[in-house]
Amino acid sequence: MSATFDEIISKVKELPAKKLSVAVAQDVNVLEAVAKARDLGIADPTLFGNEAKIKEIAKENNIDISGMPIINEEDDVEASLKAVKMVHDGDAQMYMKGELPTKTFLKSVLNKEVGLRTGKTLSHVCIFQIPGINRLLFFSDVAFLPYPTLEDKEQIINMDVKVANACGVKMPKVAPLAAVEVVNPKMPVTVEADQLSKWQDEGRIKNCIVDGPLSLDLAIDPESAAHKAGASDRKIVGDADVLLFPDIHAGNLVYKAIVHMVPGVVNGNILMGTKAPVVLTSRSDTVEVKVNSIAVAAVVAEELKKTGWD
Amino acid sequence: MSATFDEIISKVKELPAKKLSVAVAQDVNVLEAVAKARDLGIADPTLFGNEAKIKEIAKENNIDISGMPIINEEDDVEASLKAVKMVHDGDAQMYMKGELPTKTFLKSVLNKEVGLRTGKTLSHVCIFQIPGINRLLFFSDVAFLPYPTLEDKEQIINMDVKVANACGVKMPKVAPLAAVEVVNPKMPVTVEADQLSKWQDEGRIKNCIVDGPLSLDLAIDPESAAHKAGASDRKIVGDADVLLFPDIHAGNLVYKAIVHMVPGVVNGNILMGTKAPVVLTSRSDTVEVKVNSIAVAAVVAEELKKTGWD
Repeated sequence: MSATFDEIISKVKELPAKKLSVAVAQDVNVLEAVAKARDLGIADPTLFGNEAKIKEIAKENNIDISGMPIINEEDDVEASLKAVKMVHDGDAQMYMKGELPTKTFLKSVLNKEVGLRTGKTLSHVCIFQIPGINRLLFFSDVAFLPYPTLEDKEQIINMDVKVANACGVKMPKVAPLAAVEVVNPKMPVTVEADQLSKWQDEGRIKNCIVDGPLSLDLAIDPESAAHKAGASDRKIVGDADVLLFPDIHAGNLVYKAIVHMVPGVVNGNILMGTKAPVVLTSRSDTVEVKVNSIAVAAVVAEELKKTGWD
Repeated sequence: MSATFDEIISKVKELPAKKLSVAVAQDVNVLEAVAKARDLGIADPTLFGNEAKIKEIAKENNIDISGMPIINEEDDVEASLKAVKMVHDGDAQMYMKGELPTKTFLKSVLNKEVGLRTGKTLSHVCIFQIPGINRLLFFSDVAFLPYPTLEDKEQIINMDVKVANACGVKMPKVAPLAAVEVVNPKMPVTVEADQLSKWQDEGRIKNCIVDGPLSLDLAIDPESAAHKAGASDRKIVGDADVLLFPDIHAGNLVYKAIVHMVPGVVNGNILMGTKAPVVLTSRSDTVEVKVNSIAVAAVVAEELKKTGWD
């Protein structure tokens, strides 16, 4: 059973190192989120950006940033490179996007000298806490990688397993999703899902249970799964932890349906495949989502410190 | 503004003709649904199938089927052909699937002699009533057509418009969905969405407003749409009625996420592209979903009688 976000936040409070480097911090939502994370005891933020603007925004919005180091750098590209270098050098455990275009931010992440490259595919992991579902669900990829290949999907699963492990799920159940639960050569995504399942059987994909293709009801609803013919032969019966989407359209549309239609839903998001976890939330994400994302980044940083990428 | 299902049901009560032909009716859920539809005054069912079994199931489950004509035919294929012929001949306005495989049922729908072919693409329309959204939403295709071509999508829009019109929406707003709201040549679905939008501008697609590509938040959430840069240039600003999905995986996964995660959600489904609307619900659909589907089929039958397919 995975933790709730509250439990993850409690766990992060006990961690020794949770330094957070923020690129171009002059944004009210970002400052509110890092101040809240600092107050909760889950992050020690260092702010890179326009010091005067940062202080002005904090003052105007009554955000307490006292005690947070601010590195003044008015050029956004330079600020992001200095901020990412702090993580690259091991002086911070997490890297967070502020008020700069995603493209510019990602250039700093991928910078060859001071960035966080590992040679791995980068992928986005969205963690959902959904009322009525008794565990966290880990979604990939709903925001970053448009059309993952079969090999990308294998790497995505490895990243999801790291994040799930960090959140307390020892042997996550991974469901490569499709509209149907049977392999159909006319639907390539079902063939790929089956291959991922076989790679887990053969030991190529480790530390998790993979069963695909699965429709969403068989992946998350034990009652639906129990009533479906053939369910008894499956490795996952409504108890999946990780949902792997066919492509970004399917993933993003489901993600937004949940965010906009399910009352009481909570989520957090991080970018994986980097040396350290990256908090890449969007403007429309609430402060709560940003704080949850920082909490997940902190436990993932700790997990990577203990086990590395392999 | 579209009606609620309750309003659609009220409207159907006033319709003169609402004969429902049921293929292979010996199924407890199907009998419960048609009995409820009859009691509500929204359908006059004729049951084709194994008469002894139909009566036995009704008796065992206290379902009142008194007064419903039963045509005894123990062979499923024959029963479906007789049932579909009743609709083909104009003696019933709606055709419904009972206890037979979907493949066999569809063979009757597509039978050249007695079926309901129009030469059009067949497509599934799912109608959702979602708490917090002040109108019905029409989803295509979440269950039938795996990978619609651009031309298929044009036809799907025409079908959705018929269904929306029948449900009281005069000039539906149609959102061809994607993960993003900008055209990106590397994402073919966005190029197709843009083309559909242009076809509406040029008058090739009529009786609706098409604006794509749209992400789900811009399609259904006025607040998100208002905050997004460029929203003022769009034809749809969070007020879409019809959601057109890139493919069956995206559509089906969103559909199941809503059914399994949104409390209080209600839906109905019909198959379109045929001479008369077809109720093709699945075993897992509740009696309420089946009744809603019959109600939608009845208003669609009336709409097709008034306006035809073109």
